[in-house]
Amino acid sequence: MSQHRPGGPNGRAGGVPALPDLPEATVARLPEYLRALHNLAEAGNDTVSSEELAGAAGVNSAKLRKDLSHLGSYGTRGVGYDVALLIDQIEFTLGLTQRRGVALVGVGNLGHALAGYAGFASRGFRIAALFDADPARVGELINGLHVRHISDLADVAVAESIAIGVIATPAASAQDVADALVAAGVTSILNFAPCVLSVPDGVDVRKVDLAVELQILSFHEHRKSSLTALPGGLGGGPAGLVSAAEPEEAVGT
Amino acid sequence: MSQHRPGGPNGRAGGVPALPDLPEATVARLPEYLRALHNLAEAGNDTVSSEELAGAAGVNSAKLRKDLSHLGSYGTRGVGYDVALLIDQIEFTLGLTQRRGVALVGVGNLGHALAGYAGFASRGFRIAALFDADPARVGELINGLHVRHISDLADVAVAESIAIGVIATPAASAQDVADALVAAGVTSILNFAPCVLSVPDGVDVRKVDLAVELQILSFHEHRKSSLTALPGGLGGGPAGLVSAAEPEEAVGT
Repeated sequence: MSQHRPGGPNGRAGGVPALPDLPEATVARLPEYLRALHNLAEAGNDTVSSEELAGAAGVNSAKLRKDLSHLGSYGTRGVGYDVALLIDQIEFTLGLTQRRGVALVGVGNLGHALAGYAGFASRGFRIAALFDADPARVGELINGLHVRHISDLADVAVAESIAIGVIATPAASAQDVADALVAAGVTSILNFAPCVLSVPDGVDVRKVDLAVELQILSFHEHRKSSLTALPGGLGGGPAGLVSAAEPEEAVGT
Repeated sequence: MSQHRPGGPNGRAGGVPALPDLPEATVARLPEYLRALHNLAEAGNDTVSSEELAGAAGVNSAKLRKDLSHLGSYGTRGVGYDVALLIDQIEFTLGLTQRRGVALVGVGNLGHALAGYAGFASRGFRIAALFDADPARVGELINGLHVRHISDLADVAVAESIAIGVIATPAASAQDVADALVAAGVTSILNFAPCVLSVPDGVDVRKVDLAVELQILSFHEHRKSSLTALPGGLGGGPAGLVSAAEPEEAVGT
């Protein structure tokens, strides 16, 4: 089986890697498909229909088929997708066949949680180094790794082949850490600090802001409660608690 | 100043709350604008141009103007936006004027980090209750709150006016927890467990999967390295380390 060559029309022969520039939304869904496929494989399934796989990944099946067509995977009518082959194709596309090294900077509460997160190892990554700026933290042993001082970043990044930097520092330090990561040659950053980072072209940053996620949910809560607050608009769902959670607002008075 | 009534064309008079159904991408950017505006206000700025605000929030200014036009905010030519007014409008839209109660379920490493995260309180939320299924965890004091048993969820959700449930349990427990939250009347869930939740219509779920974020970055790393691996394609960026982090792949051979 071709583990490093996705088949289909995108799999070009010759010296050029067959890695299309996928839509960002497709890239974001591939990990969901991959997890669902691993679960199916563990349960002993050799093939899966697009409907089943879409259901397990929480998307509609037309979107799934379109996403997978970008990889050159179309399945077989009446049979579905070959589970093992599709796992290979997605892992190749996501570059997960090489177990990328991750450096984590900032070992406060969140950093500790991230350093101990078993899901990284099982899904293609190895936490290769931990850093902190606080000398009192340096040397601490977390999940088998000693915390290094941030000033060692450049040396360690090369020695450990760091591909991705994770920033779990306070916002005030995050830009300095990002600059240090970039100077050390790291071109992908996952930022948990609540701030916007400036990075040069060619460096990818993804941001996870926990309070932002809650604020987005808050918008939907607010919207739902404004609908149920309409005269006669209490139908649908457990409106009792929504009312309790949503004290009367001074709208329209 | 009208704190509860955004002005402009969307601000309808009468008994109907003026809460438009914004594009999801706009909703996701409003928290970024809000944080940038708070920073500007703290620095003593009364007004801000769309270019300045867009830069501080990390978006382009045309997108920002379009987003804010949904709220009925257009700014004043040559002056820009009124910082305090825009803060009020965004906080109203996001429903942040009422300090929503959050219940956190699962107090492992990640749950501990979330329970101790100062950013929630400063940005419109109060962690009102902590739950775990493990009797050994019940009673533990974390940031001033005693961990309750998950079986108390329904009672506590009403007593504490819980609006949002945060799931920080292992994947295997997450669906049961989601069912319990929904049964208790919670209609917004932030899920950190690596799995897809089934919830009834009217319940909003947002998902944060840390490994997925890394896998998305991995795709971009993979793509960048496949470009720099082309003959003569080493220009642009610190390619040295990228090569070190990316052992030769068996593509095109």
